[in-house]
Amino acid sequence: MTDFFSKVKPIQFEGTETDNPLAFRHYDADKMILGKSMKEHLRFAVCYWHNMTWPGSDVFGQGTFERPWMRAGDEMELARMKADAAFEFFAKLGTPYYCFHDVDVAPEGQSIKEYVNNFAKMVDVLGNKQEETGLKLLWGTANAFSNPRYMAGAGSNPDPKVFAYAATQIFNAMNATQKLGGENYVLWGGREGYETLLNTNLRQERQQLGRLMQMVVEHKHKIGFKGAILIEPKPQEPTKHQYDYDVASVYGFLKDFGLEKEIRVNIEANHATLAGHSFQHEVAYAASLDILGSIDANRGDPQLGWDTDQFPNSVEENTLVMYEILKAGGFTTGGFNFDARLRRPSIDAEDLFHGHIGGMDTMALSLEKAAKMIENDKLAHLVAQRYAGWNDTLGQDILKGDYSLESLAQYAVDNNIQPEKHSGQQEYLENIVNSYIY
Amino acid sequence: MTDFFSKVKPIQFEGTETDNPLAFRHYDADKMILGKSMKEHLRFAVCYWHNMTWPGSDVFGQGTFERPWMRAGDEMELARMKADAAFEFFAKLGTPYYCFHDVDVAPEGQSIKEYVNNFAKMVDVLGNKQEETGLKLLWGTANAFSNPRYMAGAGSNPDPKVFAYAATQIFNAMNATQKLGGENYVLWGGREGYETLLNTNLRQERQQLGRLMQMVVEHKHKIGFKGAILIEPKPQEPTKHQYDYDVASVYGFLKDFGLEKEIRVNIEANHATLAGHSFQHEVAYAASLDILGSIDANRGDPQLGWDTDQFPNSVEENTLVMYEILKAGGFTTGGFNFDARLRRPSIDAEDLFHGHIGGMDTMALSLEKAAKMIENDKLAHLVAQRYAGWNDTLGQDILKGDYSLESLAQYAVDNNIQPEKHSGQQEYLENIVNSYIY
Amino acid sequence: MTDFFSKVKPIQFEGTETDNPLAFRHYDADKMILGKSMKEHLRFAVCYWHNMTWPGSDVFGQGTFERPWMRAGDEMELARMKADAAFEFFAKLGTPYYCFHDVDVAPEGQSIKEYVNNFAKMVDVLGNKQEETGLKLLWGTANAFSNPRYMAGAGSNPDPKVFAYAATQIFNAMNATQKLGGENYVLWGGREGYETLLNTNLRQERQQLGRLMQMVVEHKHKIGFKGAILIEPKPQEPTKHQYDYDVASVYGFLKDFGLEKEIRVNIEANHATLAGHSFQHEVAYAASLDILGSIDANRGDPQLGWDTDQFPNSVEENTLVMYEILKAGGFTTGGFNFDARLRRPSIDAEDLFHGHIGGMDTMALSLEKAAKMIENDKLAHLVAQRYAGWNDTLGQDILKGDYSLESLAQYAVDNNIQPEKHSGQQEYLENIVNSYIY
Amino acid sequence: MTDFFSKVKPIQFEGTETDNPLAFRHYDADKMILGKSMKEHLRFAVCYWHNMTWPGSDVFGQGTFERPWMRAGDEMELARMKADAAFEFFAKLGTPYYCFHDVDVAPEGQSIKEYVNNFAKMVDVLGNKQEETGLKLLWGTANAFSNPRYMAGAGSNPDPKVFAYAATQIFNAMNATQKLGGENYVLWGGREGYETLLNTNLRQERQQLGRLMQMVVEHKHKIGFKGAILIEPKPQEPTKHQYDYDVASVYGFLKDFGLEKEIRVNIEANHATLAGHSFQHEVAYAASLDILGSIDANRGDPQLGWDTDQFPNSVEENTLVMYEILKAGGFTTGGFNFDARLRRPSIDAEDLFHGHIGGMDTMALSLEKAAKMIENDKLAHLVAQRYAGWNDTLGQDILKGDYSLESLAQYAVDNNIQPEKHSGQQEYLENIVNSYIY
Repeated sequence: MTDFFSKVKPIQFEGTETDNPLAFRHYDADKMILGKSMKEHLRFAVCYWHNMTWPGSDVFGQGTFERPWMRAGDEMELARMKADAAFEFFAKLGTPYYCFHDVDVAPEGQSIKEYVNNFAKMVDVLGNKQEETGLKLLWGTANAFSNPRYMAGAGSNPDPKVFAYAATQIFNAMNATQKLGGENYVLWGGREGYETLLNTNLRQERQQLGRLMQMVVEHKHKIGFKGAILIEPKPQEPTKHQYDYDVASVYGFLKDFGLEKEIRVNIEANHATLAGHSFQHEVAYAASLDILGSIDANRGDPQLGWDTDQFPNSVEENTLVMYEILKAGGFTTGGFNFDARLRRPSIDAEDLFHGHIGGMDTMALSLEKAAKMIENDKLAHLVAQRYAGWNDTLGQDILKGDYSLESLAQYAVDNNIQPEKHSGQQEYLENIVNSYIY
Repeated sequence: MTDFFSKVKPIQFEGTETDNPLAFRHYDADKMILGKSMKEHLRFAVCYWHNMTWPGSDVFGQGTFERPWMRAGDEMELARMKADAAFEFFAKLGTPYYCFHDVDVAPEGQSIKEYVNNFAKMVDVLGNKQEETGLKLLWGTANAFSNPRYMAGAGSNPDPKVFAYAATQIFNAMNATQKLGGENYVLWGGREGYETLLNTNLRQERQQLGRLMQMVVEHKHKIGFKGAILIEPKPQEPTKHQYDYDVASVYGFLKDFGLEKEIRVNIEANHATLAGHSFQHEVAYAASLDILGSIDANRGDPQLGWDTDQFPNSVEENTLVMYEILKAGGFTTGGFNFDARLRRPSIDAEDLFHGHIGGMDTMALSLEKAAKMIENDKLAHLVAQRYAGWNDTLGQDILKGDYSLESLAQYAVDNNIQPEKHSGQQEYLENIVNSYIY
Repeated sequence: MTDFFSKVKPIQFEGTETDNPLAFRHYDADKMILGKSMKEHLRFAVCYWHNMTWPGSDVFGQGTFERPWMRAGDEMELARMKADAAFEFFAKLGTPYYCFHDVDVAPEGQSIKEYVNNFAKMVDVLGNKQEETGLKLLWGTANAFSNPRYMAGAGSNPDPKVFAYAATQIFNAMNATQKLGGENYVLWGGREGYETLLNTNLRQERQQLGRLMQMVVEHKHKIGFKGAILIEPKPQEPTKHQYDYDVASVYGFLKDFGLEKEIRVNIEANHATLAGHSFQHEVAYAASLDILGSIDANRGDPQLGWDTDQFPNSVEENTLVMYEILKAGGFTTGGFNFDARLRRPSIDAEDLFHGHIGGMDTMALSLEKAAKMIENDKLAHLVAQRYAGWNDTLGQDILKGDYSLESLAQYAVDNNIQPEKHSGQQEYLENIVNSYIY
Repeated sequence: MTDFFSKVKPIQFEGTETDNPLAFRHYDADKMILGKSMKEHLRFAVCYWHNMTWPGSDVFGQGTFERPWMRAGDEMELARMKADAAFEFFAKLGTPYYCFHDVDVAPEGQSIKEYVNNFAKMVDVLGNKQEETGLKLLWGTANAFSNPRYMAGAGSNPDPKVFAYAATQIFNAMNATQKLGGENYVLWGGREGYETLLNTNLRQERQQLGRLMQMVVEHKHKIGFKGAILIEPKPQEPTKHQYDYDVASVYGFLKDFGLEKEIRVNIEANHATLAGHSFQHEVAYAASLDILGSIDANRGDPQLGWDTDQFPNSVEENTLVMYEILKAGGFTTGGFNFDARLRRPSIDAEDLFHGHIGGMDTMALSLEKAAKMIENDKLAHLVAQRYAGWNDTLGQDILKGDYSLESLAQYAVDNNIQPEKHSGQQEYLENIVNSYIY
C-alpha cells in the first residue's frame, strides 16, 4: 500500500474567496443549474493512463515522476498498488467517474492468454474498488496502439492476426466495461492510419476497419450493452494520417458502413485543434449530425503541433463548448473525461490535484456562463432572425424540393431579384458572449 | 484588339537540350506513354480567372498587372478584348482545354437580367473562339463568392433570395457549359462555410447545400449533360471554415444526400495542403472512395497558411500524384487545370508563359516517371505482399463476416497467437521511388 | 459632409448592468488603477486604414462596405470627407489617440510631387481636426508596400530609385508626425522580405535596410523628434518571408546596425501568433530586451494562417499581456492601437463601434485583472523563490564570471552534486491566474 | 560481440543501373566535383543516438527495435557491444565521420563521478574504434536535456547546481571531442526554453545562457581546440519555446554576448521548417550573416508539427541547399550529419542502411545538380543584373551614407522620380532551377 496521496485531503468546494489551492472555487457538485446539479451536467471522469501510468517521459527525456507503483517488482502486485492509489486519488478528487484502457490497469503479460487472465483479475479489483468508493466507469477502452505489434495498425493492420489480437482486446475490454457498469465504450484508432502511402492500401484498410466497427456494434447488441459506442477522432500523431481525422471524416465512414445510428463520437479538444478546427466547431458539428457522444476535456497549445493534453483552463473557450452541449440537450451517456496530463516538471502528487481542480473549476464556471446564455438566449434569437427567410414561402418551397434549378432561376429573373445585404454582426455577437462571461 | 501576347510565338516542344525558355523541355503532346499520348493523359486546361481577370493585387497592395483589357471602358467591349487575348494566349500555349467562371468572361451588370444577357452574349463569343482555335472547355463554373451579395454564403446563405441568385448563376453556367461542350461542371463553395459559429445554424445550412446539390444533379439529368459534376474541397479561406473541407468531408456530405454516385471531387493541390493533407493523400483517398474527378494543379508554399496558387514545379510530388491517377485508371472527364497564378511581381506577358510552361513540363515529366513506376511496379508488388494475409483463410473469413468479435477472440486465445513483426520498409520504398525519378 | 455616423451617439461608460450594446461595460476612462487612470494606462488609438480606407474586400471578393467617401469623385474632396467622418468616429468612440499612414489620409496622386502636395494639405486638415476634437496622434507611418512600385520591397528594393521614393515618403511622414505632435513613428516593412530566394541577395538587402533605419534615426535627431522610432515585426504576408520576422529577429538586426538603443518594437498580437509565438511571449521577450515600445491590439484566428486582424476579445490572453506591460513599467510613448478590422459581412456603421467597444472593454478589463495580479503578486513571489539559488554564492559566482568551465566541473565532481528536483508547478500557477480573472 | 549487421556487406557505389538496394546509386566518394571529391564536399557523418540508442519508441508506443545491446545486462559491457555494432555499421556505410552525445556512448551512472569515469572509459574505446576503422569525429556534444535533472533546463535552469552539472558534462564532452580529434563541438539547448512564461524569468535565463556560452568559448581557447563551436537552433519541442529558435534569434543572442565571431550555427532541416522557414532559408540566412557552420541533414513532414527526423530524400530541396553552401564556399569544419531516424515500423538492420543510403544518394545527387548551377550560374547572373542599380552612383551614395533622409527626399522630388517596374521573374527562375535538375 502506498501513501503517495496521503498528504492531500478530499477536495471540497470553498468558493472564490478561498485561499486554499486544494479546494474548488467553482465546482459545487450539488449546485443546481437549469434544473440539474453540476455533477449531473458535467459527469466528470478522471483517466487512469495519464495520471497513473505515464511516467513523465517525452520524446527527448526520461520519466520524471517517481511513483511507488512504477518501481521494479511483481507486475500484478504493482497493478494492485496502482489501483489502490488511483482510487484514492479519484475519490479525493471527487469526480463521479473514471476511464481506463485495459493495459493501464493490468499487465499485458507475455502472451494473449496471460493478457486475458491478468485483465480479468484486475477487472475484479476495479469492481471492488468501485464498490468501496462509489466511483463509476464513464467508459472503458482497449489500448491497441502502444504494443509493438500494433506499429502498423490494429484493425487496419496488413496482418489479420494483428486484427485478431486487437479484436480480442476489444472483446475483453467491452465485456469488462459491461461488467463494471460502464456507460460508454470508446475506440481510439491511434495507429489506424498510415506512416506512408507507399506501403498502404487505403481501400483494403477501410474495409478492415469497417468490418471491425460492425463487429463491435454486433457484439454490443449481443451482450446487451446499454451504453454508447464512441469513436474518438484524431487527425495524426502518432501516425502521419489517421482515418478518424475529424468528426466529418468519421461521419463519412459511419455512413459508408451503415453505422451512423450506432456509433457516436468522443471529441477531444486537442484533437480538434490539431485537425485545424476549433473545439467548439467539432462539438457543434457533431451535434448537427446527431453523433455527439462524449468529450475528452483538455487543451492544446496554439503554438505547438502535437497533442500537449494540457488541462483545460479557458472559460472563454469552454463556455462556447458548453453552450453547444446544452443546446444539444446535454450529455446522455457521455461526460467530460480529463484526457489531460501534467507538464513533465510537475512532479508532485499535489500537481495532479492542481491540474484537475483547475480543469473542473474551468468547466464548472463555463457551465454557469453557458447556462446564463441559454436562459436568456440572445444569440439564439438573433440567429433565428437571421435565417427567418427560410421559414417563408420561398425558403420553404426550396427546401421542400418544389423548385428545380430552372424554375428557381426563372423566378429570380422574372422578379429581377436584388437581395439586400445584412450585417453578420460578428463583433456585436462576440460582445454579447463576453457580457455573459464578464 | 490587343497585341499583348504578340511578342510570344506558339510554344513548341524542344527537349531538354534547348536554351529557349519559351519552349517545352518535357511536354511533347503526341508522345505515347502507356498507350496514350501525353496530351490525352494530361488533358491540360488553362484558367481564365488568374490569367485574364486577376490584376495582381493582394491584401496589402494594388494590382501590378497592366493589361489592356483591365483599363476603363465599355465593359462588354473589354470582355471581348479579354476573350481575344485569352484565346490567343491559350492557343499559343497549346493546351487542349480551358476553364472559366461566368463572371470571368462576362460583366455582371447591374441586375440579374443584365447578368443573364451579358453572359449569354459572351458564351456565343466563347463558342466562336473555341471553333476558331480548336480549344475545348474542360469545365465551367459559376462564381458565387466574389460579389458582396455572397458575403454570407451562396447556397448556405441565411437569405433564400441569395440562394435563388446563386441558383440562377449555376443554371446559366451549367447550360453554358453544356452548350460549349464542357466535359465537367465544377462547384467550389468559397463562401459555403462560416465566419463565426455565433451567427450560424449548421444544420440549416447543410440542408440548404444538400438541396442545392440535388438540384444541380437533377438539372444535369434534365438537360442531358454528359459530363461530371464535381465539388472542389477547400478547408478555409476566404471563410474561417468551409463545409467542403476536404475529400473525406465531401464524401460524408455526398453520402448524406445520396449523391456519392453522382458527384465527384475536383482536388486542388494547395487546398489539400491547407487542409493538413498531402496532395497525394487527397488524390489517393478520393480514388479509394471512387470519387476522383479532376485536378486543379498548383502548389502552395509549405511555410504559408493561405492559398498561394503557385504553379506546380515539383516532379517529386507530382510523380506520386500521377502514380495514383494512373493506378486509378487515369482521367475520364477530368484533367489538369492550372489553377495557378503568377507572383505579383511577375508582371510581363512572358511570365504567364513561363508559369504554364514550368507547370506543364513538371506534370509531363511526372507522368513519364509515374509511367515507369507502373510499368515495373515494384511498389504494387511489395504492397500486395504486405497484405497477403488478407487473402488467406483468416483474413477472408474476417472480411466476409464469418467471425464475430467473440469467435475471433476465441480463435486468438485458443491459438495463443503471437503475430510476427515485419518491417514497414518505408525508407526502402522511398529509395525505390527516387530510383524511378533519378 | 457625411452623416454616416450620425445615428450613433458618443459612447459612454455604463457598467456591466447596461443592456445598451453601444456603451462601455468596463472601460471607464477616468477610473484609477494603480495610481493612474485607465485612459493613461491604456492610451488607446484607433487606426485610419482599416476603419476608413479598407472597403471590405478580400482575396476572393470585392468590397462590401458602402462608405460615402469611397464613391467616385474628386480625390482631395473625398479625403476631406473621409477625415470629417474619421474624426467624428474617433471622437464618438472616445479614444485619446489615432494613427495613420500617409496614403490613408491623402491621395497618392500621379507623381511624387503631387504626393508631397496632397499629403501636406491633408496634414493641415488633420491638424485642424485634432484641435477641434482634442484627439492626439499616437503614431504616424508611411505606407511603402501597397503601391505597385513597392512590389519588390521599399528599402530592400533592388532598385535604389524605389528606395529613394520610400525615403521620401518616410521623410514626409516623419515630419508630419512631428508637426502633429505624434508620440511615435512606426516602420512596418510589409514588403521588406522576399517572394523567392532565387532572385534575392540577402546580404545586400540587409545592408540597404540597415542604412535606411540609420537614416531614420539620424533624421529623428536632426528634427528633434521626441517620440520613439518603432519597428513592427511580422513574419510573412504579404511576402513569403519578412526580415522583421519577430522580436528576436528585429533585435539581432538592431544590434547589427548599432540601433538597439534607438529603435524599439511595435508588437502586434496577430503577427506574434503568425510567427509561432504567443502574444504574451513577444511582449515579455521585448521587455526582457528593453525594446518594448507599443502594441497593435488585435487577434488572429488560431485556425487560420493569415492576418485576420480581428478585434481583441480575450480577457484571458490580454490579462497576461497587460501583466507583462505593467511589470515592465507600463507604456511611455506607446499605447494600444487597434490594428483591427471588421469581418467583411459587418457592413453597418454600428459594427465599427461594436468592434472597438469590445476591444476597449476587453483591454480595460484585462488591465483590472492584471492590476490585481500586480497588487498581490503571488506569481512574482513564486518565480523569485524558484530562482533563489542564483542569489546564493554559487549562482552569483557563476554569473560574475568567477568560474571557468573547468573549475565549475571540478566543483561539481568534488562535491559529487545531485541537484534536487522541484516541481515547476505550472498547473498551480495557471489556477492562480484564473483566480485573478474569475 | 553482436552479429546484428553481419548480413550486410559494405555499401559500394554501383551507379543508377544497379538493382541492388544496398548500393549507392549516386554517392561515388571519390568522384571529383568542382575540384574536390564528393567525400570532401559532403563530409557525411552518422549519428550515434538515433541509430544505436533510440529503441523505436514514440509518445504512444513502446520501442519496436530489438537490438542486442538494448537488452538487460551490465551497462558498460552493453556500451562496448553498442560501440562495436556502431562502428561496424558506420564502417559498412562508409561515411568518413560520426557524431555522438556523451550519454549515447557511456552509461550515466548513479552519480556525477560515475558519469565522468564511465565516459572516460568509453572515450578510450571510441578512440580505439576510430583507429581501427579510420572513422573520424565530426562533432561531439553533451546531452543536457534527457535526464530528469534537466526537466527545467540546463544552462537556463533555476537551480545553479543544475547549471554546474551541465557545465561538467560540457567540459567532459569538449575534452573528449578534442581528444578524439573532433572537428566541431555542438550545443543543442533542448530544454533551454520554457514550458510556461508564468514560472520563467526571461532576463535571468538569458544571462545564464550567455555566461555559459562564454565559458564554452573560453574553454575552447584554453584547451586549444581548433574546431568550431556551434549552436543548433530549434524553435520548440520538447519545450514550448526554445531560446535558440532559429538562425536570426541565435544571431541576436550571439551579438548580445559578443560571440558572433566565436560561435556558428548547426542548422537542421526539420528545425528550420518547424520554425516556419524553409531549409534553404536558414542556410542562406546563416551564410549571409557569416555564421554558417554545419548541417543536420534530415527532413520533416510538411503536414506534421513535430520533429519527424526523416532521412532527406528530396533532391529538389537539397539542390537549393547545396547551392547555398557552394556559394558560401562549402564546408570548412562542418559537414552533413544525418540527424535522422527510421520510422518506428522499420525494424530491420537493413532499414538502417536503406535510410542512410537514400540520404547519401540524395545529397550526392543534389551536390551534382548544384555544381551544375554554379558552373554556369544563370541565377547569379540574373540576380546581379537585378541589383545592378546599387552599383551606380545613386545606390553607392546611399549605401556609403552620403544621403540623409532629407537630401534623398530632395533628390527624389527634384527629379520627380517614377521608378520603372521590372518583373521579378520567379516562374522563369524556377524553371531554370528545374532545368538543372531534370
